[in-house]
Amino acid sequence: MSAYNLTVDLGDRSYPIAIGSGMLSAGSYLADALAGSQCLVVSNVTVAQLYFQELKPSLGDVTVDLIELPDGEAHKTVSTVQSILDRLVESKAGRDVTIVALGGGVVGDVAGFAAACYMRGVAFVQVPTTLLAQVDSSVGGKTGVNHPGGKNLIGAFHQPRSVIIDTDTLSTLSDREFRAGLAEVIKYGAIADTEFLGWLEENMATLLNRDPEALACAIRRSCEIKVDVVAEDEREAGKRALLNFGHTFGHAIENTVGYGEWLHGEAVAAGMLMAAAMSDIEDAERQRLVSLVEAAGLPVDPPAAGAANLREAMKLDKKVQSNKIRFVLLRRLGDAFVTADYDDAALDRALEPTGA
Amino acid sequence: MSAYNLTVDLGDRSYPIAIGSGMLSAGSYLADALAGSQCLVVSNVTVAQLYFQELKPSLGDVTVDLIELPDGEAHKTVSTVQSILDRLVESKAGRDVTIVALGGGVVGDVAGFAAACYMRGVAFVQVPTTLLAQVDSSVGGKTGVNHPGGKNLIGAFHQPRSVIIDTDTLSTLSDREFRAGLAEVIKYGAIADTEFLGWLEENMATLLNRDPEALACAIRRSCEIKVDVVAEDEREAGKRALLNFGHTFGHAIENTVGYGEWLHGEAVAAGMLMAAAMSDIEDAERQRLVSLVEAAGLPVDPPAAGAANLREAMKLDKKVQSNKIRFVLLRRLGDAFVTADYDDAALDRALEPTGA
Repeated sequence: MSAYNLTVDLGDRSYPIAIGSGMLSAGSYLADALAGSQCLVVSNVTVAQLYFQELKPSLGDVTVDLIELPDGEAHKTVSTVQSILDRLVESKAGRDVTIVALGGGVVGDVAGFAAACYMRGVAFVQVPTTLLAQVDSSVGGKTGVNHPGGKNLIGAFHQPRSVIIDTDTLSTLSDREFRAGLAEVIKYGAIADTEFLGWLEENMATLLNRDPEALACAIRRSCEIKVDVVAEDEREAGKRALLNFGHTFGHAIENTVGYGEWLHGEAVAAGMLMAAAMSDIEDAERQRLVSLVEAAGLPVDPPAAGAANLREAMKLDKKVQSNKIRFVLLRRLGDAFVTADYDDAALDRALEPTGA
Repeated sequence: MSAYNLTVDLGDRSYPIAIGSGMLSAGSYLADALAGSQCLVVSNVTVAQLYFQELKPSLGDVTVDLIELPDGEAHKTVSTVQSILDRLVESKAGRDVTIVALGGGVVGDVAGFAAACYMRGVAFVQVPTTLLAQVDSSVGGKTGVNHPGGKNLIGAFHQPRSVIIDTDTLSTLSDREFRAGLAEVIKYGAIADTEFLGWLEENMATLLNRDPEALACAIRRSCEIKVDVVAEDEREAGKRALLNFGHTFGHAIENTVGYGEWLHGEAVAAGMLMAAAMSDIEDAERQRLVSLVEAAGLPVDPPAAGAANLREAMKLDKKVQSNKIRFVLLRRLGDAFVTADYDDAALDRALEPTGA
């Protein structure tokens, strides 16, 4: 097994990302990342069943506890975080405990936020098992949960000590979740790398067949782009906001149809095309993005939730400042920017299904 | 009105502390500290009644909302934090909202933790109105709440943008709360400055009469010592732990008798003497500390909670690492150190009331 290694360069909070096949049971990646002799693995009922036994020996000779969260975005709540904190207190976990997130984006976000809050911050390792988590949510230190009034409204920046990506775990992912992860992969091409976008166009069928080599390549390039942006702007004072391309619309979709009805990646897919529709780009470029999203089997239209509902939901987005919604738009494919200076008619247009 | 100004030097998280009489309504300290045009003042029912009207105009021409928490340590809980977060969501507060904590340690800790969690961190200003908050909890960025299983187990490091200390607010403090604050003042002398300890011995009667000049002097010196330690070790990797002198015992007392039964400062006072009893120092030095605590009208003995109960409660202290309790002990007055290497018989001795 050969792993591809990356580093997230954040001074004394720097950490490695290891990407490869068989990483769950491989060598010392996991054991090396632990802060002390006590470890709580946070997973969900589905993923724990599949991978906990494989992962456990890699932790080495430490005390290992497991908490299995209920599955799904609907459980990305403060009360789920509380259940993790209660477990840590019950087991008298000290400041040197390590929390290992084994699962998708929800598990990582919830476990990371629990790690951020327990004793004002304990060590945390990401072992993402979905494509979406591997290319996006496990890297960069954003943790948090949803509030009934909006997505990810409660959370913290808390960097992991290590991210360990085993591409083999993607084999058990449902088609729907796999495709949802591709939305974030496409995003990286759209905002930062037209060459990668071209590669995705050429290799979409291969990716959908989950060809291991193609997958490793897509994950690697996605992580590289994310790592560069995060190293430059850890706390989203500027450039990092570009990673939210499609997310203002996407969050509004999730919030309006109810968390979990649309997968995050599905909402982001439709959201990217809405952002593209708002952008002053050539129609051919917009169409190129539509085709790629379509080829990935992702939704190209917002849900029939009504423009007014989506607009209302967007006001709670974290990118709102002094009541102005801030959008990530495209100058052209591969070149995104943040703006609060937009044409209201263009926003209306973006909010309506196009039937594209 | 003349203010004494200090800076907490933490790179891009540096911030000023202004200490003086009349600061609540003075000039631009508050207005300058705001991040945007929206502000939520977090206070409690008692303090808001006394000082909110005086403070409000100092915020300038911004949208001001007020949330009044129930009073007391028993409300330093996740659910109180949740009520603040709910209010922020309801009022559609953006990322540029500023949370102003107007009150004592509980208000500051809870409001600061809410600020740390809302949208992964928003601006936060401390306006402490109790002696304990002015000399200790408002400075240094420790925020958090209690868990039924232990004190301050859930929280975050989140530095304020500014600390504004109006010594006039101490005039409305009860004697009991005022004395509790003196425990932390004495702590600074005990761990770092015997000259200050001597000054306290000479001026204790004047301080208890709340002489404004003596108060300003004690607050200033306390903040100076704290600021130096925090600047060197923001996240308590080392030296900052010295500020917990008396706190491992103190937290165990609070946890055992029930939060709020003993005030934090009272528990710290008894806790310092327990730590001194465990320390290998001359009896005259220990007696000097006992006398000063006694002169401040603070408890010199632990409650009759039983050594076993206290010992059990201490295991949940955040300073426990790999199941070893870490104590802050004295080499001599003015010189403290952290150790997990202690004599068990000395701990037993410390846990029993001495009747000193």
